[in-house]
Amino acid sequence: MNLNLLLASTSKVYDSPYLSYLKDELEILFKDTKEVLFIPYARPGGISYTDYTRKASAFFDTIDKTCVPITAFDYPRQAVQQTKGIFTGGGNTFLLLKKLYDLDLIDALSDRIKHGCAYLGTSAGSNICGAHIKTTNDMPIVQPQQFEALGIVPYVINPHFVEKQEGEKHQGESRSTRLKEYLTQNKEPVVALPEGTWIRINGDEHRIKGKHSAYLFQQSKEIVVLETGKMMDLNNTRSQ
Amino acid sequence: MNLNLLLASTSKVYDSPYLSYLKDELEILFKDTKEVLFIPYARPGGISYTDYTRKASAFFDTIDKTCVPITAFDYPRQAVQQTKGIFTGGGNTFLLLKKLYDLDLIDALSDRIKHGCAYLGTSAGSNICGAHIKTTNDMPIVQPQQFEALGIVPYVINPHFVEKQEGEKHQGESRSTRLKEYLTQNKEPVVALPEGTWIRINGDEHRIKGKHSAYLFQQSKEIVVLETGKMMDLNNTRSQ
Repeated sequence: MNLNLLLASTSKVYDSPYLSYLKDELEILFKDTKEVLFIPYARPGGISYTDYTRKASAFFDTIDKTCVPITAFDYPRQAVQQTKGIFTGGGNTFLLLKKLYDLDLIDALSDRIKHGCAYLGTSAGSNICGAHIKTTNDMPIVQPQQFEALGIVPYVINPHFVEKQEGEKHQGESRSTRLKEYLTQNKEPVVALPEGTWIRINGDEHRIKGKHSAYLFQQSKEIVVLETGKMMDLNNTRSQ
Repeated sequence: MNLNLLLASTSKVYDSPYLSYLKDELEILFKDTKEVLFIPYARPGGISYTDYTRKASAFFDTIDKTCVPITAFDYPRQAVQQTKGIFTGGGNTFLLLKKLYDLDLIDALSDRIKHGCAYLGTSAGSNICGAHIKTTNDMPIVQPQQFEALGIVPYVINPHFVEKQEGEKHQGESRSTRLKEYLTQNKEPVVALPEGTWIRINGDEHRIKGKHSAYLFQQSKEIVVLETGKMMDLNNTRSQ
C-alpha cells in the first residue's frame, strides 16, 4: 500500500472558515493533482449537494484546485478510478456508507486509495476509512447493507471526540464509556480524534497532528495518549 | 391492540436510586402480575447480566415483585409467551436488537405486548417499541440483521433528549439537527423524551408524564411541544 491520506476529526474549527485550518497540509496532500473529486453523500439535507460542493469549492479555490462533485458524473465508479485526489465530506456516516454501497463504489474507492490516490476525509469521510463504522457518533437514520467500510487503516476512528458530553446530571453514556463498550464486542482498536486534530498518513507512517493529542482505545489495555506531532506506533494499534 | 406500557427516557434520574422515580406508576403498571420478566440484553459489559438483574431486583423488591431474568430460561421465547409483565432495561440499542433477532424473540415480544402484557422500557428498552431504531443515540457497536423493531407504537422514540449537546464550539450536530436529518430520510414521527419524562400507554391512550414536556418531530412541520400530563393527539403522530 502506498497511502497518502489526511483523516480529520472535523471539517472546520470554531470561528474559522470551512477547511481553512488544514490549508497548509492540504496544499501538500494534493500537490500532484489539480482536480479534487468531492464526495458529498454524507449530507442528509438542509444543504443540497450543489450547495455543499460550492462550500468545498470556496476552500479549494484558495489552494488553486478545482473541486468536482462525483454527482456530476454519469459513471461515478469510473470517476473514482480515474481521479488523483478525493475529498469525502462529513454529515451522516450511515447515509454516506449506504450510498457508497448502493452505487457500488466501496471496492473502487478502497482500491484507488490503497494505490496512492490523495485522500482527505473529514468526520464521516474519515470514519469510512476504518474496517467498519461501528465507532461513528451519528444517528442510524438509514441502514447500509453492512457496517463494513473501506478498511484502509488498521484501526477505526472516532471523530469529534469529547471526554465528557452533556451535563453531569445527564444519564446518557460518555464517549469514553461508549468506546469501551465498543471494545467489549470488537477487537479493532479505536483512534479517538478531538476536533482540531487529524491523522496524516504517508506510506506506512501515521502521524497525529493538530491542536490536541488523540487517544488510543484498545481491548484490555489502558487508554494511550497519542501525542500530537508524533508518529503512531502501529504495532500497538493492529488488532490482535 | 390492548396496550399497557410505560416507555421511559431513562431508568434513573440524577441522585435517586434505579427506577425509584417511577415507583408509583410501576405499582399500577404491574398490578396484575407478581413476576416481571427482565430483559438485560442491552448491557454491553462493565456489568454482568446477573449484576444487572440484581440492580433491577433491588427496585422490584420495593414494590413486592419478583424480577426474573430471561437469561434464567432454557427457552426464552416461551418465557416471553407466558409472562404477564416485562421490563427491558437500557444499554446499547443495537446490541439489544441484535440479541432479540438472534434469539428469535421479536415476534414473540411484539405479539405478547400487543395482547396486553404489561411492559416497562427504559432508554433502549423504549427505543425498540417503535417501528425501528433509527432514532437511537447509541453507538452501532454491533450490527443487528435489520433496524426494524417491535412496532408497538405509531411513532419512534428518541430517549435522553437534550436540546443542546456539548459546548457551543463543538461542531457535532445537536440532537434536534439529528432528528431533523432523520426526517429527511424517514416518515415515522419522533417523540423526543427528555430524562425524567415517560409515555404511559393504556389501550389507545398515549399520555406524556413526568418532569418535562416531550417534543414531537414530524416531516414538514414545526416541532410540537407535548405537554406533560396531557394525552398525545395520535392523529398528529401517525406517519402519513
